[in-house]
Amino acid sequence: MSDPIVVTDPADPRLGDYTDLTDVELRRRREPAEGLFMAEGEKVVRRALAAGYPMRSLLLTPRWVDGLRDVVDAATVPVYLVSPELAERVTGYHVHRGALAAMGRRPLPAATELLAGARRLAVLEAVNDHTNVGAVFRGAAALGLDGVLLSPDCADPLYRRSVKVSMGAVFSLPYARLDHWPRGLDDVRSAGFRLLALTPDAGAVDIAEELRGSGGGRVALMLGAEGDGLTRQALAAADARVRIPMSHGIDSLNVAAAAAVAFYALTTAAPRTPEDRP
Amino acid sequence: MSDPIVVTDPADPRLGDYTDLTDVELRRRREPAEGLFMAEGEKVVRRALAAGYPMRSLLLTPRWVDGLRDVVDAATVPVYLVSPELAERVTGYHVHRGALAAMGRRPLPAATELLAGARRLAVLEAVNDHTNVGAVFRGAAALGLDGVLLSPDCADPLYRRSVKVSMGAVFSLPYARLDHWPRGLDDVRSAGFRLLALTPDAGAVDIAEELRGSGGGRVALMLGAEGDGLTRQALAAADARVRIPMSHGIDSLNVAAAAAVAFYALTTAAPRTPEDRP
Repeated sequence: MSDPIVVTDPADPRLGDYTDLTDVELRRRREPAEGLFMAEGEKVVRRALAAGYPMRSLLLTPRWVDGLRDVVDAATVPVYLVSPELAERVTGYHVHRGALAAMGRRPLPAATELLAGARRLAVLEAVNDHTNVGAVFRGAAALGLDGVLLSPDCADPLYRRSVKVSMGAVFSLPYARLDHWPRGLDDVRSAGFRLLALTPDAGAVDIAEELRGSGGGRVALMLGAEGDGLTRQALAAADARVRIPMSHGIDSLNVAAAAAVAFYALTTAAPRTPEDRP
Repeated sequence: MSDPIVVTDPADPRLGDYTDLTDVELRRRREPAEGLFMAEGEKVVRRALAAGYPMRSLLLTPRWVDGLRDVVDAATVPVYLVSPELAERVTGYHVHRGALAAMGRRPLPAATELLAGARRLAVLEAVNDHTNVGAVFRGAAALGLDGVLLSPDCADPLYRRSVKVSMGAVFSLPYARLDHWPRGLDDVRSAGFRLLALTPDAGAVDIAEELRGSGGGRVALMLGAEGDGLTRQALAAADARVRIPMSHGIDSLNVAAAAAVAFYALTTAAPRTPEDRP
């Protein structure tokens, strides 16, 4: 166990992992390069640990020590105890959840590895908004997909905001990056997946109809960024373009809602039997 | 047509409808009391007009005049032309969409009227967050519900933020308020609706299963506020409690995603035929 170390100097180099958390541009470069990510709040810290991520250190304000007592007692890494004011000075914001953990990343599985073990996947193209990445992961995990593949320009699922919005789903759902785009989609199809492109385009096929027709095989559903949607290249690479039927003159849902509906359609169109689990 | 009226004094009483838009507490009391709501941005202004809401006046910065030229030319109410700085002084924020319309409300239909003409309804209990109300309306309209019933303490669908998040769906989907809660739910059931309560509770029935079993009759789906969910009274009033099956240890979706999935289940479980349209 670690005895908490009281820190009173905002420039203390031991707090280096926690500096400038509000500088998104800096942190989005720095964290992957340093093999680091931040878990914020008791629940998220616990989920990250439960998922097997190694903790580098823990930063607590006094009122949060009791809630994480067991984690503190079990910790073999430094536990820093700071005032709320110092936490704000270091991180750049008011840490109202009072607990931050600097966690170590693990190597991502190769896309081929993820493909081998899955039946239903989401494939995200250029979803570069951390909130949307988190929301899509939450939906994909909740609605029973087996994993997520990311185009090279998708936002980092382990960025603090993505983790928070996903409610920790980024820890429980396997994901991998495709190194080449759209060429990496060939690997998805070679692995036996039918590649569907979700689009609001009225010319696309009703997703439920498409799924009934294709009879319950492996499916990878591609989603694009809010606003722009999928690129021409991604649409061209798909086996079929599918849409969620819309009414009342509304032409789209936000990306989190559209993704959730499509994932639901995916898992209910062909409910899995014990035999078809990977 | 109206010639635009150039206004340079932020205290000009003719701009009274547009003052202090960032004071949510003030506006949420004032707007319904004065039969007023705000439409923001060209698209939303056009949708409000297309839905038949009467315009009281229009507030434009110069660069937005051309985009709304036809609306300005057709207007029989004052069109105020102001600098971006004056717009900000009056409203309290930077109006980057450059167009605001003060619109008049219309009487809401009675709940009984809405019930008579509908087959699939959403019923919201105490959803007091404007963003969530807007998102639920967008999903309900897009996914083919016939209307929305609101408990007395739900947030105003015509509040600026609700309108914006709904992408104008609050204009195209009929809604009404239940004056008494939960007693008003008796009227829903008297009108022949099966009243389902959506809950993350693992003891509830899979929504798809429930809908298959109840055979395509009239359905009203109750949703509660994010976090708290439905009250005990609402749950007790329901004919059945239904849930969206969850995986990977995730216990819930956000309210917009959960609503969208449930609405999709509702409309796909019993696709409407031409005969059963109201």
